[in-house]
Amino acid sequence: MLTDMSPEDLANYRSSQVNPDDFDAFWTRTLAEAAGHDIDVRLTEVPAGLATVKIYDVTFKGFAGQDVRGWLRLPAGVEQPLPAVVQYVGYGGGRGHHLENLFWASAGFAHLQMDTRGQGSSWSLGATPDEGPSSAQVPGVMTRGILDPATYYYRRLFTDAVRAVDAVRSLDVVDADRVSVVGGSQGGGMALAVSGLRSDLAASAAFVPFLCDFPRAVRATDSYPYREILDYLKVHRGEQEQVHRTLSYFDGVNFAARATAPIYLSAALRDAVCPPSTIFGAYHVYGGPREIKIWEYNGHEGGGILDEEGALHHFRTQLKGV
Amino acid sequence: MLTDMSPEDLANYRSSQVNPDDFDAFWTRTLAEAAGHDIDVRLTEVPAGLATVKIYDVTFKGFAGQDVRGWLRLPAGVEQPLPAVVQYVGYGGGRGHHLENLFWASAGFAHLQMDTRGQGSSWSLGATPDEGPSSAQVPGVMTRGILDPATYYYRRLFTDAVRAVDAVRSLDVVDADRVSVVGGSQGGGMALAVSGLRSDLAASAAFVPFLCDFPRAVRATDSYPYREILDYLKVHRGEQEQVHRTLSYFDGVNFAARATAPIYLSAALRDAVCPPSTIFGAYHVYGGPREIKIWEYNGHEGGGILDEEGALHHFRTQLKGV
Amino acid sequence: MLTDMSPEDLANYRSSQVNPDDFDAFWTRTLAEAAGHDIDVRLTEVPAGLATVKIYDVTFKGFAGQDVRGWLRLPAGVEQPLPAVVQYVGYGGGRGHHLENLFWASAGFAHLQMDTRGQGSSWSLGATPDEGPSSAQVPGVMTRGILDPATYYYRRLFTDAVRAVDAVRSLDVVDADRVSVVGGSQGGGMALAVSGLRSDLAASAAFVPFLCDFPRAVRATDSYPYREILDYLKVHRGEQEQVHRTLSYFDGVNFAARATAPIYLSAALRDAVCPPSTIFGAYHVYGGPREIKIWEYNGHEGGGILDEEGALHHFRTQLKGV
Amino acid sequence: MLTDMSPEDLANYRSSQVNPDDFDAFWTRTLAEAAGHDIDVRLTEVPAGLATVKIYDVTFKGFAGQDVRGWLRLPAGVEQPLPAVVQYVGYGGGRGHHLENLFWASAGFAHLQMDTRGQGSSWSLGATPDEGPSSAQVPGVMTRGILDPATYYYRRLFTDAVRAVDAVRSLDVVDADRVSVVGGSQGGGMALAVSGLRSDLAASAAFVPFLCDFPRAVRATDSYPYREILDYLKVHRGEQEQVHRTLSYFDGVNFAARATAPIYLSAALRDAVCPPSTIFGAYHVYGGPREIKIWEYNGHEGGGILDEEGALHHFRTQLKGV
Amino acid sequence: MLTDMSPEDLANYRSSQVNPDDFDAFWTRTLAEAAGHDIDVRLTEVPAGLATVKIYDVTFKGFAGQDVRGWLRLPAGVEQPLPAVVQYVGYGGGRGHHLENLFWASAGFAHLQMDTRGQGSSWSLGATPDEGPSSAQVPGVMTRGILDPATYYYRRLFTDAVRAVDAVRSLDVVDADRVSVVGGSQGGGMALAVSGLRSDLAASAAFVPFLCDFPRAVRATDSYPYREILDYLKVHRGEQEQVHRTLSYFDGVNFAARATAPIYLSAALRDAVCPPSTIFGAYHVYGGPREIKIWEYNGHEGGGILDEEGALHHFRTQLKGV
Amino acid sequence: MLTDMSPEDLANYRSSQVNPDDFDAFWTRTLAEAAGHDIDVRLTEVPAGLATVKIYDVTFKGFAGQDVRGWLRLPAGVEQPLPAVVQYVGYGGGRGHHLENLFWASAGFAHLQMDTRGQGSSWSLGATPDEGPSSAQVPGVMTRGILDPATYYYRRLFTDAVRAVDAVRSLDVVDADRVSVVGGSQGGGMALAVSGLRSDLAASAAFVPFLCDFPRAVRATDSYPYREILDYLKVHRGEQEQVHRTLSYFDGVNFAARATAPIYLSAALRDAVCPPSTIFGAYHVYGGPREIKIWEYNGHEGGGILDEEGALHHFRTQLKGV
Repeated sequence: MLTDMSPEDLANYRSSQVNPDDFDAFWTRTLAEAAGHDIDVRLTEVPAGLATVKIYDVTFKGFAGQDVRGWLRLPAGVEQPLPAVVQYVGYGGGRGHHLENLFWASAGFAHLQMDTRGQGSSWSLGATPDEGPSSAQVPGVMTRGILDPATYYYRRLFTDAVRAVDAVRSLDVVDADRVSVVGGSQGGGMALAVSGLRSDLAASAAFVPFLCDFPRAVRATDSYPYREILDYLKVHRGEQEQVHRTLSYFDGVNFAARATAPIYLSAALRDAVCPPSTIFGAYHVYGGPREIKIWEYNGHEGGGILDEEGALHHFRTQLKGV
Repeated sequence: MLTDMSPEDLANYRSSQVNPDDFDAFWTRTLAEAAGHDIDVRLTEVPAGLATVKIYDVTFKGFAGQDVRGWLRLPAGVEQPLPAVVQYVGYGGGRGHHLENLFWASAGFAHLQMDTRGQGSSWSLGATPDEGPSSAQVPGVMTRGILDPATYYYRRLFTDAVRAVDAVRSLDVVDADRVSVVGGSQGGGMALAVSGLRSDLAASAAFVPFLCDFPRAVRATDSYPYREILDYLKVHRGEQEQVHRTLSYFDGVNFAARATAPIYLSAALRDAVCPPSTIFGAYHVYGGPREIKIWEYNGHEGGGILDEEGALHHFRTQLKGV
Repeated sequence: MLTDMSPEDLANYRSSQVNPDDFDAFWTRTLAEAAGHDIDVRLTEVPAGLATVKIYDVTFKGFAGQDVRGWLRLPAGVEQPLPAVVQYVGYGGGRGHHLENLFWASAGFAHLQMDTRGQGSSWSLGATPDEGPSSAQVPGVMTRGILDPATYYYRRLFTDAVRAVDAVRSLDVVDADRVSVVGGSQGGGMALAVSGLRSDLAASAAFVPFLCDFPRAVRATDSYPYREILDYLKVHRGEQEQVHRTLSYFDGVNFAARATAPIYLSAALRDAVCPPSTIFGAYHVYGGPREIKIWEYNGHEGGGILDEEGALHHFRTQLKGV
Repeated sequence: MLTDMSPEDLANYRSSQVNPDDFDAFWTRTLAEAAGHDIDVRLTEVPAGLATVKIYDVTFKGFAGQDVRGWLRLPAGVEQPLPAVVQYVGYGGGRGHHLENLFWASAGFAHLQMDTRGQGSSWSLGATPDEGPSSAQVPGVMTRGILDPATYYYRRLFTDAVRAVDAVRSLDVVDADRVSVVGGSQGGGMALAVSGLRSDLAASAAFVPFLCDFPRAVRATDSYPYREILDYLKVHRGEQEQVHRTLSYFDGVNFAARATAPIYLSAALRDAVCPPSTIFGAYHVYGGPREIKIWEYNGHEGGGILDEEGALHHFRTQLKGV
Repeated sequence: MLTDMSPEDLANYRSSQVNPDDFDAFWTRTLAEAAGHDIDVRLTEVPAGLATVKIYDVTFKGFAGQDVRGWLRLPAGVEQPLPAVVQYVGYGGGRGHHLENLFWASAGFAHLQMDTRGQGSSWSLGATPDEGPSSAQVPGVMTRGILDPATYYYRRLFTDAVRAVDAVRSLDVVDADRVSVVGGSQGGGMALAVSGLRSDLAASAAFVPFLCDFPRAVRATDSYPYREILDYLKVHRGEQEQVHRTLSYFDGVNFAARATAPIYLSAALRDAVCPPSTIFGAYHVYGGPREIKIWEYNGHEGGGILDEEGALHHFRTQLKGV
Repeated sequence: MLTDMSPEDLANYRSSQVNPDDFDAFWTRTLAEAAGHDIDVRLTEVPAGLATVKIYDVTFKGFAGQDVRGWLRLPAGVEQPLPAVVQYVGYGGGRGHHLENLFWASAGFAHLQMDTRGQGSSWSLGATPDEGPSSAQVPGVMTRGILDPATYYYRRLFTDAVRAVDAVRSLDVVDADRVSVVGGSQGGGMALAVSGLRSDLAASAAFVPFLCDFPRAVRATDSYPYREILDYLKVHRGEQEQVHRTLSYFDGVNFAARATAPIYLSAALRDAVCPPSTIFGAYHVYGGPREIKIWEYNGHEGGGILDEEGALHHFRTQLKGV
């Protein structure tokens, strides 16, 4: 069964998410604060013992100048400077193990896989703490600091994500004009956010992105992690207006409207985690060139490796010389 | 089916938990740091409109001088100073709504129900943030900061719990010599911890307490919240020694060995959340007078109101003049 | 996700339940038979040991003069005669333990918590047998005697509920002009039934009431206890007309149309147990002054303590001198 | 996985069930009371339209002279008087539809399938009400009237079962010396009970019988229907002694010790509903000739049709002239 | 809740399934190939020991001349030649045990219960291998060979089913003009297929038939066995067109349009396995006389024995002399 | 909780699996038959567009000369001839997508990932049909042809696995003296089987291997795919001896006893799919040098990438010049 709308209804759907008056001011201020800290990228080569890929343990300064970790993977024997991909990770995961995820480096890209603060324990390994405050909250990060945009967890994480682009652009081996972002689920939501906050990306790709169209999401699914919001409001009766106000500063729909980089999106018709309507809510207002792949028989796994292959093809098309 | 051991095996079981060399030094230092902040109890009467109970919104300074919330409920028309009960709450909950939980005040006690930092959203309402750092962690608080006793979440929470006793003792309406602590599940674990950290309690009661005998718990149950530890170690392969070292500073078994206040404990033979063996691990080494009630046909609900009635009877027996 | 209709659709929904021709005659006859037995209220004080509430074990004569149990809780030191609240209990529960549920007495009401015949074993304790016949039935009481209104279980229970009002009005400590009824779920269905069968109530409150709008309920939910009806008809193919005829004598929609007491109702948009449309089916035809509180993010727990607080405020508004 | 003991442990296991002093007196009195009512068998042929089996709707007087229903199926064109089989039904079921269950009549037996009072709605159809009292109970019949052997549901049902033997023996077409009983699960428990209460049976068969060895059952399984007892004691804390006393009057272990008819039993090593140890508890003390079939890879379905085939072979061996 | 459409919507629904151009050619060729093998019916009497039914182990040549097994049950003492019923079995099952399923023989029919190749292990016993190729597939048979109509599993099974009619017609004891087919679920789908492929059936009956209206089924349910198709397409992204083309050769909708025998159909409004709309998709285009029974409160069990009784009545009405 | 034995018990456990007299003859004959067909390796380069890895679509002749598919991945710019790894896949999966699984090629190995006949649809893509016969079976392949070793599915698959070693050894780019095998779960069972059937492997690695110690497995777990055997025997009562005889020809325990290549094994203490005792059953009799890694807090995911890293290290140690 379809978990959400039919393709016809998706084509006609438009999100009801609102645009807070000070959305741009909020993010300008937030990113300026982060930029006040030197990016301070530190690289340590990992003795991975691979023949075709070199791997580095990366640390850079993210939100509030706090250290954020990652892996940098570089193809051996490929002409530099390289095009680059910054990859963001799905909910509960971290940067994982250095030997995992060799796809982008093997394809000839400098590949920065950014760790996710305070996550990295549910299905893949992380090493970055979240040093912000934790309010009365439901387990997880969806409601951490949710009563105020200034204290909300995703303010910190999205800022890290923006800074990761700075980090990769600062590398000698990278061609700063050919930097793209990619991610699935939460990582897709982050790619969308960064696409709305940066005007210097060569391309973008978001697979079955999370964190889009919250007003629709709370009615369209009972699945986690969106459900953390429902769980919170179930106990915190009467805070819904405040919660939805905070969420509007972090909604992929609002980021999409500000984006310019050409994007590859995907959505799956049987996805209960990130219902396709929430993704089409962002797609329909996306500011740059856009394409969206619909996976008719898939759930939240979306296109899997085919989405990665699609993003690779998209990047090759958009990035000169790749 | 029994979820754990038979009564005969429980009688013979002894925990393998170890006692870190600097356990006492760690807690002495921790509590001294907290005591360096004035307790600063602030009371605001809530217009609850009840005929027999007066209710106050309480704030005091807990770990690192951070504000901790609570409710103070006082019986109307009862001679003062009053004996007092400090109550701690189960996992995921907070101090709740002021109109809930009128039992202890109706029984003639000054009743301080302490809020739980960073929780208070899963089943009862809370209002206290957790301002400490959040490491790479599994959703929940069981693995927040778990790689170091100094950063572990329960260091902050147990310190709050100790400070709540100071807060209630500082009240004019309370007889400081007749202060007890009570709690179920996580609240029971906190009551046990406070019993091991304070020598001035009149009595204590812990129903089906959580946070006891971690070496046994990780083998005896797959249920949450103990399972958060298992989930963490499943991904963070190789950190088990470090994790278990941290946990030993927060284990009810080690607190029990240091306690002196007479305690009422309970355990349930069909409890998969807090397996009875883990509770007997603490019971068998408890330093003060002790009694334990076994609920043969119950799960984690334990004795429910009968446990509260048992605690009331226990307190009446221990506290002169109640 | 919403389990039933959106707020807009709820506002427009009307139940299709029919009004059996002899509905009033059936209930007049039923209540007259019960009234033929002396109410015979027997009170025994329980040595509860509370400072602010006195508790009595109550027995009175309900349907067919059979003994029905309950707890009477009275606030100590409050001027009498008292306003009173009769409370009915949710499905599977009984009057519980005498130390539970101190809210209404603490608020200054004489509080009669009526036991539920034949239930009182699934989540709270009961002590009243159901002495009527048990037909071939699905486990539970929803289909006990369902082939005839005269033998249906709820004929006996609703009659008990009406008699409980007589019982409390007969007490010296109670002001018979200020008696209200309250309940949640099945207890809410009973409050609604009593509101339709008594013209002498000061006020009424029904939280997420059960037993409303059966024609809608069997299509709107698969959850128990409504599902017992579905389970029955699954095996007893061909009895659906007879079953629905019986149910029409016990439907909150039909009671609501006859009610006059001002009522506080609540419904929850994510309630699969008592779908909000079934409650609006009763609300829209309610004969007396009415208000309904919608809990947008809640399931069958509805407003919890906030519903109780709402009822307290409602009663205070309706009852002079409270 | 095995749900209970290995074959070796089953061979050595003995039940701890006790024998109440007045067990025999209780049952003698109970059956004498029932025998005080004429059996009053009423037969109405059903126009089933079968070529080889004739079917009658049967009513006879069971416990307290109350009407009990059943189907009588007779093979067409077979020499009379016929050997007979009385069959009892599993938990939640009733006599079913007259066209079901043609096995025993096709095999040449007069086949009385007895209805089950108050059940007959969960998976197969019934038509017999239970007219006894219903105490505060868990849904189902396992705890109906459980505080006293005199009011317990199974006192009524077992008496019906004994009377069904009288009913079939009273028929002209039946050879009263060749009457057997058979049943699976609850029906097996009933066959075992009747085997302990009648000395005039030609043979008996009980497949994966229920209602055996309650002291073991409450520790060996969490599955329904045994679980109803656990659910009850979970809420009715403190009534366990009284409950187990009642159950001892209805335990297959105690009936087995009094039985004389040759019996075919079966048990399944992966049966969580009726754990094999509880059945071996009865088997080891069975008073008559006995055989037990172990189904190694089966759950509560046991041997299915192979158990029926086994019973047919067993009856043929025991009954002269079949 | 209804799992699919309301009765009103079912009445108006029409399937979107298409008719492949070479549908008839495909089946003509397929059946001609099978007919090229002698039917070669082999009967061995089973010593079942029944008084009224004789049972034979049957083998005949089905698809590609491969041996297909079955049971033949004949009523004893009934005048021959007999009307006959060929029965097909539900998904995962086989012909079962010879002592099961005595209904049709007892009703006076020669009853051939055909085994199901390669199944017969999940809930009832089978003995017939599937000798065709197994492609990369999801567990089960729904996607075995699904990329080509020529290799699809159901080509083999439906051919067996057609041949079973030939087998029974070839028997001396059978009146070849009075042969009907019957089945439930997968068996119903087979009965429908045979009804579309044979013009010599006296009557047909399909209870809650499976294998109808695939374009609707993949959107209307997530339940197995339809779900095997969804599971397959989830991994085999991009093969959906090919898969649906294959399925169109095996869709009950297309068979129904070619059928002429009077049919008894049933559908259940709460059936998630075979949603009623898919059955109405076939019903509305059925070429012969048709009736459909709607079971309002049932799931996939449909009418159970009442469907069998309905089929018996239907056959009696259609078959002269029964 | 541990799903099986403690580490201490694992150390002492020995399997009860028997060694069929003609085990070696059976496999010698089977492999000789396969070797009678030319291996006929066909390679087609896939335009994958990677910078560091070249990928080829591979076909070779496996069991009965049937075509078996795979991917060959070669590191670009690495000196040849290369050491090689043949990898086998877990249950339900196939060779997957060519862009997946770049680990072994990136590490400098020629990497042949063999497809799995008839699977490749549940979680990763396959393209190889199983052309053997399908008996009456449970969905899946565990009971396909299980009544005879000659027709059992795994006879065909294990033969394919052996032939894959021949295929890779025949390649010019490969150093035939440095060929290893690796796999997890079913792939681990295949690696173990090949280790027992080939004496020319440089090394072997099996992560949480499946298909070991069947006599223990059927008692130690209810999880799939072992459960397919239980499901089969539940319906096919009486075939257990025959089934276990067949399985003894395919048991990792028996292959281990014949193996000589140094092996890296792993087992997880919380693995319900492949209980650690079944793996230790093979480990304790393994004929060559052996090491086993125990993952204390893991389930069937075992060590994940750490197992791959462990295997890489193991191969580097064993293979000269890697």
